[in-house]
Amino acid sequence: MTDRILPTEEAGDLLDLATEIGDRELAPRAAEYEARREFPRELIRTLGRAGLLGLPYPEEVGGGGQPYEVYLQVLEILASRWLVAAEAVSVHTLSCYPVASSGSEQLRKLLPDMLGGELLGAYCLSEPQGGSDAASLTTKAVRDGDAYVVDGTKAWITHAHDADFFNVFARTGGPGAGGISCLLVDANTPGIVPQAPERTMGLHASPISQIAFDGVRVPADRLVGDEGTGFGIALRALDSGRLGIAACAVGLAQAALDYAAGYAREREQFGSPIIEFQGLGFMLADMATQVSAARALTLSAARLRDHGRPYSVEAAKAKLFATDVAMKVTTDAVQVLGGYGYVADHPVERYMREAKVLQIVEGTNQIQRMVVARSLAKG
Amino acid sequence: MTDRILPTEEAGDLLDLATEIGDRELAPRAAEYEARREFPRELIRTLGRAGLLGLPYPEEVGGGGQPYEVYLQVLEILASRWLVAAEAVSVHTLSCYPVASSGSEQLRKLLPDMLGGELLGAYCLSEPQGGSDAASLTTKAVRDGDAYVVDGTKAWITHAHDADFFNVFARTGGPGAGGISCLLVDANTPGIVPQAPERTMGLHASPISQIAFDGVRVPADRLVGDEGTGFGIALRALDSGRLGIAACAVGLAQAALDYAAGYAREREQFGSPIIEFQGLGFMLADMATQVSAARALTLSAARLRDHGRPYSVEAAKAKLFATDVAMKVTTDAVQVLGGYGYVADHPVERYMREAKVLQIVEGTNQIQRMVVARSLAKG
Amino acid sequence: MTDRILPTEEAGDLLDLATEIGDRELAPRAAEYEARREFPRELIRTLGRAGLLGLPYPEEVGGGGQPYEVYLQVLEILASRWLVAAEAVSVHTLSCYPVASSGSEQLRKLLPDMLGGELLGAYCLSEPQGGSDAASLTTKAVRDGDAYVVDGTKAWITHAHDADFFNVFARTGGPGAGGISCLLVDANTPGIVPQAPERTMGLHASPISQIAFDGVRVPADRLVGDEGTGFGIALRALDSGRLGIAACAVGLAQAALDYAAGYAREREQFGSPIIEFQGLGFMLADMATQVSAARALTLSAARLRDHGRPYSVEAAKAKLFATDVAMKVTTDAVQVLGGYGYVADHPVERYMREAKVLQIVEGTNQIQRMVVARSLAKG
Amino acid sequence: MTDRILPTEEAGDLLDLATEIGDRELAPRAAEYEARREFPRELIRTLGRAGLLGLPYPEEVGGGGQPYEVYLQVLEILASRWLVAAEAVSVHTLSCYPVASSGSEQLRKLLPDMLGGELLGAYCLSEPQGGSDAASLTTKAVRDGDAYVVDGTKAWITHAHDADFFNVFARTGGPGAGGISCLLVDANTPGIVPQAPERTMGLHASPISQIAFDGVRVPADRLVGDEGTGFGIALRALDSGRLGIAACAVGLAQAALDYAAGYAREREQFGSPIIEFQGLGFMLADMATQVSAARALTLSAARLRDHGRPYSVEAAKAKLFATDVAMKVTTDAVQVLGGYGYVADHPVERYMREAKVLQIVEGTNQIQRMVVARSLAKG
Repeated sequence: MTDRILPTEEAGDLLDLATEIGDRELAPRAAEYEARREFPRELIRTLGRAGLLGLPYPEEVGGGGQPYEVYLQVLEILASRWLVAAEAVSVHTLSCYPVASSGSEQLRKLLPDMLGGELLGAYCLSEPQGGSDAASLTTKAVRDGDAYVVDGTKAWITHAHDADFFNVFARTGGPGAGGISCLLVDANTPGIVPQAPERTMGLHASPISQIAFDGVRVPADRLVGDEGTGFGIALRALDSGRLGIAACAVGLAQAALDYAAGYAREREQFGSPIIEFQGLGFMLADMATQVSAARALTLSAARLRDHGRPYSVEAAKAKLFATDVAMKVTTDAVQVLGGYGYVADHPVERYMREAKVLQIVEGTNQIQRMVVARSLAKG
Repeated sequence: MTDRILPTEEAGDLLDLATEIGDRELAPRAAEYEARREFPRELIRTLGRAGLLGLPYPEEVGGGGQPYEVYLQVLEILASRWLVAAEAVSVHTLSCYPVASSGSEQLRKLLPDMLGGELLGAYCLSEPQGGSDAASLTTKAVRDGDAYVVDGTKAWITHAHDADFFNVFARTGGPGAGGISCLLVDANTPGIVPQAPERTMGLHASPISQIAFDGVRVPADRLVGDEGTGFGIALRALDSGRLGIAACAVGLAQAALDYAAGYAREREQFGSPIIEFQGLGFMLADMATQVSAARALTLSAARLRDHGRPYSVEAAKAKLFATDVAMKVTTDAVQVLGGYGYVADHPVERYMREAKVLQIVEGTNQIQRMVVARSLAKG
Repeated sequence: MTDRILPTEEAGDLLDLATEIGDRELAPRAAEYEARREFPRELIRTLGRAGLLGLPYPEEVGGGGQPYEVYLQVLEILASRWLVAAEAVSVHTLSCYPVASSGSEQLRKLLPDMLGGELLGAYCLSEPQGGSDAASLTTKAVRDGDAYVVDGTKAWITHAHDADFFNVFARTGGPGAGGISCLLVDANTPGIVPQAPERTMGLHASPISQIAFDGVRVPADRLVGDEGTGFGIALRALDSGRLGIAACAVGLAQAALDYAAGYAREREQFGSPIIEFQGLGFMLADMATQVSAARALTLSAARLRDHGRPYSVEAAKAKLFATDVAMKVTTDAVQVLGGYGYVADHPVERYMREAKVLQIVEGTNQIQRMVVARSLAKG
Repeated sequence: MTDRILPTEEAGDLLDLATEIGDRELAPRAAEYEARREFPRELIRTLGRAGLLGLPYPEEVGGGGQPYEVYLQVLEILASRWLVAAEAVSVHTLSCYPVASSGSEQLRKLLPDMLGGELLGAYCLSEPQGGSDAASLTTKAVRDGDAYVVDGTKAWITHAHDADFFNVFARTGGPGAGGISCLLVDANTPGIVPQAPERTMGLHASPISQIAFDGVRVPADRLVGDEGTGFGIALRALDSGRLGIAACAVGLAQAALDYAAGYAREREQFGSPIIEFQGLGFMLADMATQVSAARALTLSAARLRDHGRPYSVEAAKAKLFATDVAMKVTTDAVQVLGGYGYVADHPVERYMREAKVLQIVEGTNQIQRMVVARSLAKG
């Protein structure tokens, strides 16, 4: 088991709680929900009631008041039990960020319900054509009296069908980053039409869809921050979101390693447990080393954030490194099990399918490299 | 398009034929068969009628009389259209090997139908507990009058539900490799019970299953070679089979590369086709380089076989290298498409799920490394 | 510049001190000492006087009383200025460990001079035939009256020609680990004959040699710990020593990255600084990510040690990972400079030659994998 | 030993000859020449007299009339004995290309002496500032009566001090590629001043230097091809030159593999030859696989050239892949020997220092990736 140096005793309690809920509620149910392609809305509510949905936000608005270092380790533990649950927490946390960081007094009154998990959030930034070039988004929000009228299509929306509120980034001004604003939109607003779920390789229990916004009237007081500040909000949210994805990747990789190592201790070939063969043992050793490095890097970036230091570049490194590790380690975990790894009787094939998405979301790993390269170019 | 130096004009015609059938019959149907999880028995028959099912066997027994160098390039082309079809050809070719190389006069009379594709073959070597330690197999074939009675369970059988004949490796003597014999078993023989298909990560249109052999009486003249020579036959068949898998891997990787490069030429971000960005361009260049190296190594091993030189170690290298390349290249191809790569609207997520199995079958890549390491240890 | 969260203000002062001495005394002199193949004994003394030679040892015996987390960051900074100096500190720190952890009262009286750098240490464990199998060592220490008489040859001794004292691990009992004892030997003792320096690829200013021990009489009170406990001492020392090598690797890799990035910002090709080309920019981004991960993993292992937790396996991971990173990053740094990287006008070719030794010392990276694999096999 | 399928019996004889000369003349002398930093001019002459210096050129001008496929395997064998000799052959072959492909009748009269090795060639394309952007070169050749007057500085010249003739690429016209011409310059021409040898990490017996051209008068009939065609000549020469470097890389990697495997068969630890430990055995297996793939890819590209097909992109892949393999394999070969690998008693540390230059010369591996990426962008 991972030996962790934690900043407080409370942190230890939170990790124990996450472990317990993960073992009792998440891990045993993952396979069935995945097979049914059903989002575990109730389980997310359970996490919320346990106080695990708003960990990094201040206690005065209903959050857990925890440093990111602790929040991310909770996330990691949840991810090691079931990525869908951890990803839901990560996306939801991201979705609470705009209001928590830039919302009006009035909007902030929603935070307790958001952070408590009664209201599930989604994040609508990407568009079908936009991809990595988010600042070119074309969804429009046109002021009409006391409302904005939103038209356009958003893509790759986790919780598209299940969210209670959406952060919608739309163009209220001219082209480029400066013309983008953020709106907090109630999911029940007329004109919001989630499309058929994407046929994703993994994360089957967490449908991802496009959403068509067709003349959606959003009250003007649902504007988060000022007009034209949306892109800045989105980027800052992404910095934190990347840490969340990194932690998910660490948890997923750890689960794959643990499963493969466990299998290799039990499985015998040529008269010995296969973990005794150096060929396999060294492979597992490399996997374990990579997972430890990914965790250390992720938590190191988190501590920068917790200390109020610039952390954007280190978060990009953590996201890049941890998700590449998750892809490699899950692929190798399947290899450890051989043919058995390729079938759904064991979870490792699912881990591998899940890992791939982490290299893509919250900025592809190419975008992360761009972030790091730019920081080096500045010197 | 891959520029190939071919040994004969006929070889060029065969590759053109494979391309044409692949484009017309295989590629357009892959997605539907995969979705229905249905084996394309008719399409395999079509390949057989076109003369593509027995290419490396002598013309006098109904084969194509082609060198392995040519056969493997046909296989590669088929794999680039649909791995399931190419794998079917590869497995079938493997299944014809015992009879073609060691079968009695009488058994060889079956070859024309086998090589023509009227009879589809399967290969029953692995067992649930056996894994990489094939020589420890426990399925028994006990002589009883003019028949062998076969009892045991075979695992990981491609074509388990669709084959017309099985090569069954069973123990007729004492423990170890020397006690193993090969039987050519008619699929209609009573007592052969294919189990439910494995829930594999990929190759959905090519169900893989266990088969229970329960008191299956096999006429004694269905023994291939002498008693106790089965393991040798299996190993020699595997040497050839590894080349087949290597070629499949090359084709799959080439398909992934082509699709990703095509997408990257079309897709624009930040005002340019994304292939113009060096970050992505270099990644694609590395993918292309790996694919070329995998092809060259595979064909180089094939030429050794064609010239009657020892080729077992080079075949192991080719299988190891080409399938590792396929895993890497298909994973990167998904990355090139970003979110679009993760959904079934594009074939690359399927390629990635398919690639993984190639690192495992016909001897895991750990087994291939063992083969190469042993040859180095001998000096 | 690396942004560090440090445990104390004093730690910050120590890092500043190391930076200052490194910039003033080490970096500007590295090239000349390397060219002359001369050990910088005076510079090491300077480090000692600045209090940088005994950082992780208790203040009451003349040490710095610093946690390993701080000591390793000092080491890293020194390594980024000149590996030879950092390696000297690391080896010396290792050489003080046996007495500091297990020495008699009398031996501990030497600690202030040792930790202050007046006495430089060396560590004599390896033997010409021994390699990774240290427990098979054959150097003998036979009790003769009030002394042990040591005979044998030790290999790969850093500071062989410059040390004031040696930790000699010799066989006082039967075969295997249990027959090995540790002696603290004065370098002036008759019979100690350092051999010609090895012609190493790098670290030219830090000659490494075999030492022949020819009837060397060592007073019996120079025994460290009890007879037969030497191998345990050696292993515990190595656990710490591995962290030291990991930190050296991080510093070396950081120096290579910084130099390459600086060059790439200045060097123009095709009309732009070459760092602006994504091909190179992404390569540098990967290097930076690897260096950050190596640092985080190393410090994470150090904190386990500082908190009294088991840290041996994490130290093995850190050593393995950080030194593999150093090898890769220094090799790529040469590539960034192209032809200029291949010549001694720039330090990166030296960095690359230095990096290789780090994958070998204090247990090859194969031994580290063995340590990690064994921990996984235990579950 | 590598099993090769050769196109002719003569090819086999040539490889045997190369092997014999390599074993007798090159391998035993490498270490001393390297230590003395002396170019083995006599040994190169020996190669010339044996007919190994002009292999790929037509017999009617004194060449060997061999396909590139054969020439490259000769080169590989020489490189496995001593890289400096193989690199001399490769550079010399490159230096003969302009005259052989584009020279006037008169210039071609020099070919027999060039191809026979009486006259050693060098290739002056790079400049201190130019790097990968060769078309921006600034050395000028100004027509003055019946001569060109050449002024400028060329960099990274192999054979700068030993060549008898130089191919000098200089600007006779306007900026860009179209203003560049190629001159065949006699090394004795006044005004040619080779500078002090570069202090390279490896290839010590093959000094590389800048050459200052200071008002060098070159007879106008020494123009190779027409004015303004020089850059095209240079690029075509480089395509062939890249294959030469790829072959050198294969030979070097093979030598490293062979040495490491031989050592691992002899060296015992923990009671067994270390090659028996899977950890090391698998590493050697991966090395062997990479070397085989590099050879196959290189020869595959060569056969395209031999068949008159476009081969530029495949040559770039071969150079990229084979030299990356050489870097990896030589680095790992040092690792196999542990501490012994780090010292000059064994050749592997030299191999590693030599491998690095191959990733840089004849177009850095970044340039090769650019070549491949552009071909993919065209589709």
